[in-house]
Amino acid sequence: MSGLRRAAARAWGPPRALRAFSARPRDRETLTGKYGEDSKLIYDLKDQGGELLSLRYDLTVPFARYLAMNKITNIKRYHIAKVYRRDNPVMTRGRYREFYQCDFDIAGQCDPMIPDAECLKIIHEILSALQLGNFLIKVNDRRILSGVFAACGVPESKLQAACSTVDKLNKMTWEDVKNEMVGEKGLTPEAADLIGEYVKLHGGLDLVEQLLQDPRLSHNKLAGEGLRDMKLLFEYLMLFGIVDKISFDLSLARGLNYYTGVIYEAVLIQQQNDRVEELVDVGSVAGGGRYDGLVGMFDSKRQKVPCVGVSIGIERIFSIVNCKVKASKEKIRTTETQVLVAAPQKHFLAARLKLISELWDAGIKAEMLYRENPKLLKQLHYCEDTGIPLAAIIGEQELKDGVVKLRDVATRQEVDIPRQKLLEEIRRRLES
Amino acid sequence: MSGLRRAAARAWGPPRALRAFSARPRDRETLTGKYGEDSKLIYDLKDQGGELLSLRYDLTVPFARYLAMNKITNIKRYHIAKVYRRDNPVMTRGRYREFYQCDFDIAGQCDPMIPDAECLKIIHEILSALQLGNFLIKVNDRRILSGVFAACGVPESKLQAACSTVDKLNKMTWEDVKNEMVGEKGLTPEAADLIGEYVKLHGGLDLVEQLLQDPRLSHNKLAGEGLRDMKLLFEYLMLFGIVDKISFDLSLARGLNYYTGVIYEAVLIQQQNDRVEELVDVGSVAGGGRYDGLVGMFDSKRQKVPCVGVSIGIERIFSIVNCKVKASKEKIRTTETQVLVAAPQKHFLAARLKLISELWDAGIKAEMLYRENPKLLKQLHYCEDTGIPLAAIIGEQELKDGVVKLRDVATRQEVDIPRQKLLEEIRRRLES
Repeated sequence: MSGLRRAAARAWGPPRALRAFSARPRDRETLTGKYGEDSKLIYDLKDQGGELLSLRYDLTVPFARYLAMNKITNIKRYHIAKVYRRDNPVMTRGRYREFYQCDFDIAGQCDPMIPDAECLKIIHEILSALQLGNFLIKVNDRRILSGVFAACGVPESKLQAACSTVDKLNKMTWEDVKNEMVGEKGLTPEAADLIGEYVKLHGGLDLVEQLLQDPRLSHNKLAGEGLRDMKLLFEYLMLFGIVDKISFDLSLARGLNYYTGVIYEAVLIQQQNDRVEELVDVGSVAGGGRYDGLVGMFDSKRQKVPCVGVSIGIERIFSIVNCKVKASKEKIRTTETQVLVAAPQKHFLAARLKLISELWDAGIKAEMLYRENPKLLKQLHYCEDTGIPLAAIIGEQELKDGVVKLRDVATRQEVDIPRQKLLEEIRRRLES
Repeated sequence: MSGLRRAAARAWGPPRALRAFSARPRDRETLTGKYGEDSKLIYDLKDQGGELLSLRYDLTVPFARYLAMNKITNIKRYHIAKVYRRDNPVMTRGRYREFYQCDFDIAGQCDPMIPDAECLKIIHEILSALQLGNFLIKVNDRRILSGVFAACGVPESKLQAACSTVDKLNKMTWEDVKNEMVGEKGLTPEAADLIGEYVKLHGGLDLVEQLLQDPRLSHNKLAGEGLRDMKLLFEYLMLFGIVDKISFDLSLARGLNYYTGVIYEAVLIQQQNDRVEELVDVGSVAGGGRYDGLVGMFDSKRQKVPCVGVSIGIERIFSIVNCKVKASKEKIRTTETQVLVAAPQKHFLAARLKLISELWDAGIKAEMLYRENPKLLKQLHYCEDTGIPLAAIIGEQELKDGVVKLRDVATRQEVDIPRQKLLEEIRRRLES
């Protein structure tokens, strides 16, 4: 995860106030009513003494709770930690019941779309740095979706349910989505058909302009706000130089209840004969949006703290990187050991222990075999097998001469180095 | 935790096979029978579909399970992750129900005491590097304890129970421990008194030698093995140069069932008028030992993989570091931001966005205020409040001249830098 950490450290503080997120598994009610249909995937703990507790489902709700409890109205932070979902795991695709998320969030009063654009820049930066292949960031806005649903005749009360259904469009055909809307969610077939026309749309700034002129949406206040903000967002993303990876996509809904404004999701894509195809196997690798009401839900005075954030799906990304590594058949070192301390004769364990201790104390990454009298050949093979570049060999002659034999494992060249110059020489070799 | 990570990376591989530890909360039976009296502190999950699951209590048992499941007989790794205990939390002392542990383990056939000595070296290195103050590493061996108990007339069947009771010596007086031994654990008062004589003993190599001559222990095979290994351990710790922090302490028992050989625990101490006092407030900050039977418990063929390891109590260490920081009243930066991108006039948001994007793309840690038109004074105050060393200011004149005004926040000196030389100049300033 060090790549992620580096990206995260660039402009974000370290994961502050670690404790505040984790005094104990959370009271069950903290999580109630935040996740919509997905609530059934929450892991509950057994009642072992009158406490109803659950495992956290994501990092967003705990973050919002933390802000409210500590009266924090302004913070920017990242957080890498585990979340739990009682879902059907698919190991090969990086879908687990316990998995890591990496979240970035910006909380506080800001002018429109500035932090939102930064979240998209972060996604772009991470996915580019990891060289996962081509990707696309779909963007939409809950207010635009609300406007579309309202214009299509969906009553306010059925809005969230309609959102959840539209969110399944990447897994289900439009036919099935429509059936669910009409059958389960109680929309009229006419409303569903009209929604179908809108959610097919995707494009760039031109689509935003087109919808701003759409007569059905022009009277809807929320849709107007959403579209004007979307225009602003595109302007900022242009300045960030990432607009070519952005798609304004009206089918993007995101299932979670707490989003209030812009929403986004990154997917990997494949260019095939002029056709862009989504790699549906892994699903989205990052997603997020604006949630201006969530902090207020935890505050006794309902004080709102506007927030926008993004979650990176670490396991899904790992599974893709893993596939790439396997395909390339490159041998990857699993340790960072720089020097193996070895001896050519028996009865040199004490000398090895003393030498390795000196190397450790000097901050050099060193190993030795955990045997009293290992064969020299075995020690040298170990270097070759694990990719350790140097061997520091100490035996009878070396001890007598006050030197250590330094062996370059790749070239097999050996040079006697005076003991007091050893650290310096090792550092010199490691740098070059 | 970066100090820990650095220490960990020195000679240890990265946390390999992350997934294998965490496909889901563990089957409850994985944890059964491993923790002795502490088993009551395991968090169970609610039965939500026929699966009896528990949260992990430590990192050792999951590590052993992982080795057995994957037929790994040789590995050395560190792992930083959360564990859960249904205990009474004491926030101020860094005792929580959900907390991080950092574990180091060496698994595989080794010659006696070589990896065990390395674990103690690791504890010494971490506690020294973190400058927590004076500390002591108590060392004992389960085989010596068994020998002592046997020599004092404790039957085999009551050994584990007697161990658990002795382990409470740092929290209870000897009187209370004796009462528990006799009353609850069914030992005779004579046996308890005799044990009392032994568990008072602590010292160095001299005590090992003394016990090797002890007529009561001389016939006990296990005690003999333990004492001879303890002698070897002291020899190796001498070579590692850390023997002055080690105390062979017969009262150290450690409650967990799975230890089979050497055990250890690090405590912080205070020197007061020639008396060494343990800082009991925080308890031990690190502990571990040898557990040669645990992997075999998870293997269908009961194949044993000898293991030795150490757990670092991260929260306890954090709470101590926190106290020190508060006491010193030093102001500590909570971000690593190097440059604030600012504008002196209105309507320069686009210019700021373009500039910050350039800095980000070059790997420079940059921030800007999330406002369209923030006041310059507010932007400069932000730098001073948060310790950002440089401000890159872009306004009308700068845009016209093709420069950026670079301000040193501490000295308030400002210099115009040609735009194409900006990155270079920022890097130069940050390095010096």
